[in-house]
Amino acid sequence: TRAFHHRVGIIGAPFSKGQPKDGVQKGPEFIRDAGLIQRLKGQGCVVKDYGNVAFEDFPDDEPIGRLKNQRALVCSLAIGSISGHAASRGELSVLWVDAHADINTPLTTPTGNIHGQSLSYLIHELHSKIPKLPNFSWLKPCVAAQDIVYIGLRDLDPEEHSILKYLGIKTFFMTDVDRLGIAKVVEQTCDHMFLKVKKPIHLSFDIDALDPSVSPATGTPVVGGLTYREGIYICENICQTGLLSAVDLVEVNPELGNSQEGVESTVNAAVDLLLACFGRHGEGSHNPDYTIPNP
Amino acid sequence: TRAFHHRVGIIGAPFSKGQPKDGVQKGPEFIRDAGLIQRLKGQGCVVKDYGNVAFEDFPDDEPIGRLKNQRALVCSLAIGSISGHAASRGELSVLWVDAHADINTPLTTPTGNIHGQSLSYLIHELHSKIPKLPNFSWLKPCVAAQDIVYIGLRDLDPEEHSILKYLGIKTFFMTDVDRLGIAKVVEQTCDHMFLKVKKPIHLSFDIDALDPSVSPATGTPVVGGLTYREGIYICENICQTGLLSAVDLVEVNPELGNSQEGVESTVNAAVDLLLACFGRHGEGSHNPDYTIPNP
Amino acid sequence: TRAFHHRVGIIGAPFSKGQPKDGVQKGPEFIRDAGLIQRLKGQGCVVKDYGNVAFEDFPDDEPIGRLKNQRALVCSLAIGSISGHAASRGELSVLWVDAHADINTPLTTPTGNIHGQSLSYLIHELHSKIPKLPNFSWLKPCVAAQDIVYIGLRDLDPEEHSILKYLGIKTFFMTDVDRLGIAKVVEQTCDHMFLKVKKPIHLSFDIDALDPSVSPATGTPVVGGLTYREGIYICENICQTGLLSAVDLVEVNPELGNSQEGVESTVNAAVDLLLACFGRHGEGSHNPDYTIPNP
Ligand SMILES: [Mn+2]
Ligand SMILES: [Mn+2]
Ligand SMILES: [Mn+2]
Ligand SMILES: [Mn+2]
Ligand SMILES: [Mn+2]
Ligand SMILES: [Mn+2]
Repeated sequence: TRAFHHRVGIIGAPFSKGQPKDGVQKGPEFIRDAGLIQRLKGQGCVVKDYGNVAFEDFPDDEPIGRLKNQRALVCSLAIGSISGHAASRGELSVLWVDAHADINTPLTTPTGNIHGQSLSYLIHELHSKIPKLPNFSWLKPCVAAQDIVYIGLRDLDPEEHSILKYLGIKTFFMTDVDRLGIAKVVEQTCDHMFLKVKKPIHLSFDIDALDPSVSPATGTPVVGGLTYREGIYICENICQTGLLSAVDLVEVNPELGNSQEGVESTVNAAVDLLLACFGRHGEGSHNPDYTIPNP
Repeated sequence: TRAFHHRVGIIGAPFSKGQPKDGVQKGPEFIRDAGLIQRLKGQGCVVKDYGNVAFEDFPDDEPIGRLKNQRALVCSLAIGSISGHAASRGELSVLWVDAHADINTPLTTPTGNIHGQSLSYLIHELHSKIPKLPNFSWLKPCVAAQDIVYIGLRDLDPEEHSILKYLGIKTFFMTDVDRLGIAKVVEQTCDHMFLKVKKPIHLSFDIDALDPSVSPATGTPVVGGLTYREGIYICENICQTGLLSAVDLVEVNPELGNSQEGVESTVNAAVDLLLACFGRHGEGSHNPDYTIPNP
Repeated sequence: TRAFHHRVGIIGAPFSKGQPKDGVQKGPEFIRDAGLIQRLKGQGCVVKDYGNVAFEDFPDDEPIGRLKNQRALVCSLAIGSISGHAASRGELSVLWVDAHADINTPLTTPTGNIHGQSLSYLIHELHSKIPKLPNFSWLKPCVAAQDIVYIGLRDLDPEEHSILKYLGIKTFFMTDVDRLGIAKVVEQTCDHMFLKVKKPIHLSFDIDALDPSVSPATGTPVVGGLTYREGIYICENICQTGLLSAVDLVEVNPELGNSQEGVESTVNAAVDLLLACFGRHGEGSHNPDYTIPNP
């Protein structure tokens, strides 16, 4: 009963200005080279690769409008991605899987990295807390705080902790994953997202949500993360809701990770997460028309 | 209340023809060298080492008949093992712990490796799908589909997926382990096996069921596997049913694994799984006659 | 609602005579160098570092009496620590997180290491089993068997197994952690400790309770241990009872562990466990007086 013909548009966003460490702009190239597109096709997806974003044109909503159904944006900056997605599909549920909350405002951020502020620009209820930024005049808040769920949090600035409490956002810290188990976490995530009306889901998956033993090649690894299996479990089950409409897979940095093995593990995990988002399931599958041959 | 005097017969099967990678025939030697026999004796087992199978004689049922109680067949080919076990003990429950289903027929296998077909030859309900094979005229199906349970599956050919569904075999994919937890998986496995009548259990444990971070020295590692603890938990609990009658521990290949450390981890895991099958329990034990000495 | 101003006294105990491997006396130095004290202060603790125990004076209760509230004893020998704690606070609950039970008597120990006997000297119900030891005349039993809980056990001498059964001590072996999950284990631990009256908790955390993949730099690593997340979960939740009164963090041996990476992983885990014991929580926190700034 799984749908076999996910339509997937791929956009690479080789961008490293969201945070201070160079190299993350090579993430999309490594993920493509690991065979993402062939493997998506191999599992029955109809794939169109839109190539990489040219960053002069980035704030433009156009590339989003071309996407019919689902898309994977391999990117270090969710602001444009979620804005465009909302412009195209209307109200969204946002599932943010990350060690970090990325919800500082320009006035609370201790680091100034825009990556650590992505969500604050997008949330209606934080609008009054955001100063007018000349380069972001195109940006309007498009997500309600109650439509956001976090999984995997374990490294928050105190200011972010305060913002999360202020907004009452649904959060699953790692300690909640330990307490509830990943299955209940995903179940409660879906319950929360579907409480009122089923909206298209925007999944933002920061590879640093996974444990550094799995994905060391990232800029801000934090010990005590999700296992590979927990990451895949999230993606498989969100896919099976039938509502997953866009995926950002961010923060793969092939220049970090200490060893070739670490980079490969990170990139392979990223590919497997994306495959799980678009129909791959641990249970495998077969064409319903297939019959076992007789001798 | 645990039985302390498991009688264990050991048969090595240094065989590598079941799959294309050389080296797996050295598995039994490494497992013996890691102290399997002394350690089994140390935990109270009565052990007889029958040495290695001479492959000219392999299809012979005789070695099985010599086993009084339980045996561990360190082997890459379960066909002979399960056939012989069934010839000796009658109807069996088969618990197959593996990343792979090994249930292709000769007409569905994409690779032609006989290892990937082991179970298809043995299942009554697949008999009509198996072509007559001159070298396997001795082989009669001996297991009912409803008497098989899989744990750890995560890499199936579409044809195998189709066969599993066609036969309605009880399966616990890794995603089920994540959803249910290993304790419920083992509980439901036992419920399924004991539903009608308690039959002797044949456990086939492919070391690639474990995660490659634990057991890299194997021919077809697949990411996202069982933890060491989950593997041990299965063996301990199946042992405690009192019905475990034979164990195949397969696919340890000491020539793979990239590092000495990886080989040792794999071999040690294999030994620990076998010890858990034959009475070792994380809780430890003591002789009931022991009294704490007074000064 | 978490208390932010834990008062913490630190005592290093650079002692290696409790077991045969040299190096463990450097544990306190490495743990301090990893920033324990600054990080405790950073999370709002009031910290006083009492330096290292001078072992000539060790049996003296005095250093304990100087501690107002809580203390972390980075030590390889719990006898003095628990004795002093009980002398200062009265009846204790003891939570012993360890791969080993450390409960041999001088007459049952197969190795003679005093580390492996720590608890036997302290338990009222074992008093008659302990020979008079000239150097330990100061030592009186101070803990009731029913006030002890073990988590993480997986490597017991048969004699220890016998003692645990004889005393009816509450134990969570690794197989219990697998069966129940860490959340239920901690819940049942607290239920057991609080059954009659809420006593101050003495937590003894042997770093070898964690899996050797996390903490290899220790003298007697045992495969199949707690994950980093499970270790932190225990400490966070015991902290939140409000009753944690002293912590021993033992068996960090920076001269073992095979690699710089292994030592760092071990030391960092030790620091994180201690931070979790004294108020750090995966959920983060913020000053209740903080308000999100407006532009
Ligand atoms: Mn992050
Ligand atoms: Mn992020
Ligand atoms: Mn396999
Ligand atoms: Mn197999
Ligand atoms: Mn220990
Ligand atoms: Mn210990």
